[in-house]
Parts: sequence; structure tokens; C-alpha cells
Amino acid sequence: MSSIKITATALAAAITTIFAASCSVAKEPIQIIPAAVITNPEKVELGKMLFFEPRLSKSGFISCNSCHNLSLGGVDALPTSVGHNWQQGPINSPTVLNAEYALAQFWDGRAKDLKEQAGGPIANPKEMGFTHELAVETIKSIPAYQASFASVYHTDNINIDHITDAIAEFEKTLVTPNAPFDQYLLGDKTAINEDTKAGYQLFKNRGCVRCHNGPAVGGTMYMKMGLIKPFHTDNPAQGRMAVTGRESDQFVFKVPTLRNIELTYPYFHDGSVWSLADAVNTMADLQLGQALTETETSQMVAFLNSLTGEQPQIVMPILPPSTSKTPIPVPFSK
Amino acid sequence: MSSIKITATALAAAITTIFAASCSVAKEPIQIIPAAVITNPEKVELGKMLFFEPRLSKSGFISCNSCHNLSLGGVDALPTSVGHNWQQGPINSPTVLNAEYALAQFWDGRAKDLKEQAGGPIANPKEMGFTHELAVETIKSIPAYQASFASVYHTDNINIDHITDAIAEFEKTLVTPNAPFDQYLLGDKTAINEDTKAGYQLFKNRGCVRCHNGPAVGGTMYMKMGLIKPFHTDNPAQGRMAVTGRESDQFVFKVPTLRNIELTYPYFHDGSVWSLADAVNTMADLQLGQALTETETSQMVAFLNSLTGEQPQIVMPILPPSTSKTPIPVPFSK
Repeated sequence: MSSIKITATALAAAITTIFAASCSVAKEPIQIIPAAVITNPEKVELGKMLFFEPRLSKSGFISCNSCHNLSLGGVDALPTSVGHNWQQGPINSPTVLNAEYALAQFWDGRAKDLKEQAGGPIANPKEMGFTHELAVETIKSIPAYQASFASVYHTDNINIDHITDAIAEFEKTLVTPNAPFDQYLLGDKTAINEDTKAGYQLFKNRGCVRCHNGPAVGGTMYMKMGLIKPFHTDNPAQGRMAVTGRESDQFVFKVPTLRNIELTYPYFHDGSVWSLADAVNTMADLQLGQALTETETSQMVAFLNSLTGEQPQIVMPILPPSTSKTPIPVPFSK
Repeated sequence: MSSIKITATALAAAITTIFAASCSVAKEPIQIIPAAVITNPEKVELGKMLFFEPRLSKSGFISCNSCHNLSLGGVDALPTSVGHNWQQGPINSPTVLNAEYALAQFWDGRAKDLKEQAGGPIANPKEMGFTHELAVETIKSIPAYQASFASVYHTDNINIDHITDAIAEFEKTLVTPNAPFDQYLLGDKTAINEDTKAGYQLFKNRGCVRCHNGPAVGGTMYMKMGLIKPFHTDNPAQGRMAVTGRESDQFVFKVPTLRNIELTYPYFHDGSVWSLADAVNTMADLQLGQALTETETSQMVAFLNSLTGEQPQIVMPILPPSTSKTPIPVPFSK
């Protein structure tokens, strides 16, 4: 894992970094992403195992990492995901990287946090296609998991809350510090070039930053997709309206993070746009009623590419074998 | 990676280990698996990226690791694999761990080595469903891959042979040394218990070792499945006959490795048996015409479990992003 294990030195360094950042860039609308500070490495390790655990799916084939692939910026890089029985997912998989910084989870914010989110795909018939009951039975049937949950949660009665809590604890470590733009914010004026700086000025001056702000450069609010001009899509997602029931929330989505946006194509909730330049121009047009020159677009893209941080270095977990009590995966029944 | 990088000290240690093994256990039909010695780390790293590269599939969703999951003993732990468009694979996925020790690849030995094997699933319409041409075009379109192939293969004209060669180079490092049984072979008589030792004696005395021998405890020969009594299965695989055309090769398969057999359930080419004890009894019955007592079966299982070695510690590769020239994945057309 890239994440630092907590030691006095590391903690001091992290605090210094955060303090330095808050002093030097207090007036910037974007803040640095600090490295993860792991206070419970055993829980994180357990969560990592579960994140990579295909036996949390009906097929035994799909894990969290299938659609939030940590080799690919925490996404599957597909318009919409492949689910159980090759069903087409309803919406573009958001990145798990820096997801903890969002005010809520899923595009429509229907889960209040990472823990609540983690339970969704396991039981979604179009995603992992399992049930929470079978997921618990599977994990309970494996002695190494029993021992690990006993140690971390002091229980011999594992439930779905333990499972999703551990997954969330792992996901909280999936941050991407030290992007060139972070280094710039921390005072290294040579960390990004002039085009990138110009792009950042445009990003602020044209109004992008009104929605895309904070440490994750997004995730701090909900906003209508198609604010000034409508967004045309075949995707049936209704956004926040599905959660609040309010007509005014139609097509209102959580503003996505722009961190690592270079890696998390295709763009928008329908995954319809593959080029970052196209996405920038579409946003400028539909959300801000503006047209960018070619130079401006390329400066904006340069700025966005400077948000690619250090990716988590994940040692793949070695998962313990099933036992005679483990439910047998059912990949090929519907 | 678990594999040792080559240094003078490490090489000396490896040579000593191998020498010690060959001296002390010269008469044993099973030999230790030594740790991998990496002579070209850059090629191995490139191969690792490609092993985890879902863009080598039509869907952009399936990589080598999907069915040879390094979190799961190098298999998918399913009877037969899930392929493109959720097609059911024809045969149980053999483990990639220690695969280099086999005389040939695939159950029917139709690929002479790991390199030749690696090209198969990419272009198999039931597996990754891609073409070698599109795989090459995909890799060529990504500057980081271009640079890596230029450095490793001194070429700016990447072809499928380069791609499969790199994958094979990575796979050669996927060995599992230091199993308790290896420690026993190396002279540590306390590394395995009395049941395990009894199981090993049975394994030799009952004749299992006639087929399951060598460093991988298998992979050194072909043998008919159902030698004494027929093996009943719905699986249509014909074995070596499909390669040689000889009637006498019907149902003749490569003898699988028993290393890490604890992890590589379900068993046999049709993946029909989930319990190792059941598999042992079936083999004893069909191949050797013998019945084992309950005690003997459990001793045999204890021996087999002592073949679980140290699993490769794999740091997940961070894959470089696609470009505007990269073919767009097509997960949902048939």
C-alpha cells in the first residue's frame, strides 16, 4: 500500500504537510490531498481482502475491484459496467480513489458514506447479484476470515455491517497525493508549466471551480447536468430526484471529482464522452454557456492532467480458500 | 513480487538451495520449487502490466488475471471460466502458478510453452474475444507501452510475439517456493507432521507419484483420465486426441500440478469436484483401482495441503491511460 503506516514521525510529517498546505493555500478553492494515515492496519488489510473478494458475488467472478479497478484509476474505463451474467450497468462507475472526500456516494448520493455504498453492489441483481445473507455466510465459512473479524471487531458473529465497514476502511486509504498540482499548491512553482497555470486560471475564472472545488476538486455538492442547455443522453438516470422525489432534482447529480480525471474516462454519468477535451468543451457549453478556444481547451486539459496523483501501490491480497461450508458460486444460472 | 531480484548474494543463496536439494533428496520423486530468479526485471514488469491488462480483451473487462487470479492461487475457483459476454468456458482454468514447470500448456498440451499459451485466450471468442491485431493496435496506441517495448525489445514495431513473450516472462516468476513439504525435502523433518508424512508414503506407495512427480508434482506427462474405470462427465473435452488426432489419445490430459491444490478447487478438467478428499478418492478409484480408508484419505489430503507454497506477492501494476488512438472497448455487442 502506498499509504503510510502511522508512526510518530510519519504523523508529524503529515500534520506538517497539512498545516503547510492550509497556511500557504488558504485562499485557493482547491486543497491538496494528503497521504492516507492508517490507524488500524489490520482492519485495512481485512478490507483489502474483501475489496478483492469475488466470493462476495453470486458468480464468484466479480469483486469490488472488477469495476473499481485499482490498476485503472479506480474505474473500469467503460461507459457502464459489466455486471452479473454480463448485464449492462445503469451508469458509469465512479472512481473509488479519493471517494471518501465526497459528501455522499453514488452519482445520486443515495448512500451517505463508503460503508453504506459498499453494501449496494453486492446485493444489486445487475452488479454482483448476491445477497447480504449469502455474503455473510460465505465469509463466515472461512476460518481465516473468522479469525480476522474476531481480531478486528471482537466478534464471532460476522454481519454485513462488519464486512462493509472493513471495505470502507480500506477504501479510505485509496487517496492519490502528490499530484503535480498539489506540489504547486504546496509552493513548488515549477511543478506545473505555464499552460497548466493558465488552465487553472481559466478553471477559476470561467466558473468551473464553483462546482469542482475542495480537496477532490468535486464531490462537495450536487448540480444539475445540463444547467444552461440540456444534456442529451439515452441514459435513463434521473439523478437526485430518485432519492428526494423532488421534480427539481431531476438530472441533478453529485459533482464528480476531477482528481485523476486523465485516468477515469469515459466521462459523465452516462460515460458517453471519451476525450477529456470534448468533456471540457461540453461542460463549458452546457453548464456555463461558454465556448473555449482551442488553446483554452488545451490549457484546461493540461490543468486537469496535473491532478493525476500518486496511485495507491496495492499488494494483491492472498485470499484464504473456501471450505465445505462455503456456498458454491453460481456463475451460469440466471 | 515474491521473486528475488538477482544479486550476487541472492544468486549464491539460490544455487546453494538448489544444490542442497539435489543432494539431499536426489532419490525423491518430487523436487523442491526454488524461488524465481529474475534476470530481466523490466521485461517482467511489462509482462505483469499485460497480465493485468483488460484492454487485451474485446470488452475491456477481462484480463489474464480474471481467470488466473493471483489472489486465488492462480485460478478463478470456478468449474469453468466466465468469458466474453458471460460465455461459459469449455474447461477448468488451470493455475498459472508454477505453470512453467509443465511439459506443455493447456489441459491438452496444445501450446508448447507459456508464450504460445498467452496468445490463445486473447483471440478465443469464448474467452477474451479479441483479435491479435486489435490487441497490438491497443498496446501500440499507448505511449508508455511504446516506451517500455522499445526499451525491452529494442523495437518500435510491437507485435503479438512481443506481447506474449513479456506475459510469459512474468508468468515464469509465478512460483510458490517454501511449501512445508519443500522444507521437509530440504531436511527440516519437523516441517510436516506425522499424518503428512504418512500421506506422502501412501502417495508414493499407492502409485500416485507415477504421474504426479517432479518439482510441480505433475505436469511432466500426459495420462488418460479414467485409466482403470471410466470418468463420467458432461464435459465434451477430448484431451490430447484433439491435438494428435489419435483415437488412443481420447481423454488423455496433461497431468495437473498438485502444488497449491488446496487453493485450486474445483478439481479435474471439468471442475466437477469441490472437495479434495473426494478428488483423492476418485483418482484412487479410477486411475489406480484402489479404495482408501478414511484415515488414508485424510493423510493423503494432509500431504497435499503441505504443497501450498508461498504465494507471489504482486504489487498491482498501474496501467497507462488510453489515447485517442486506442480502440474503444466493446463490452456489449456480441
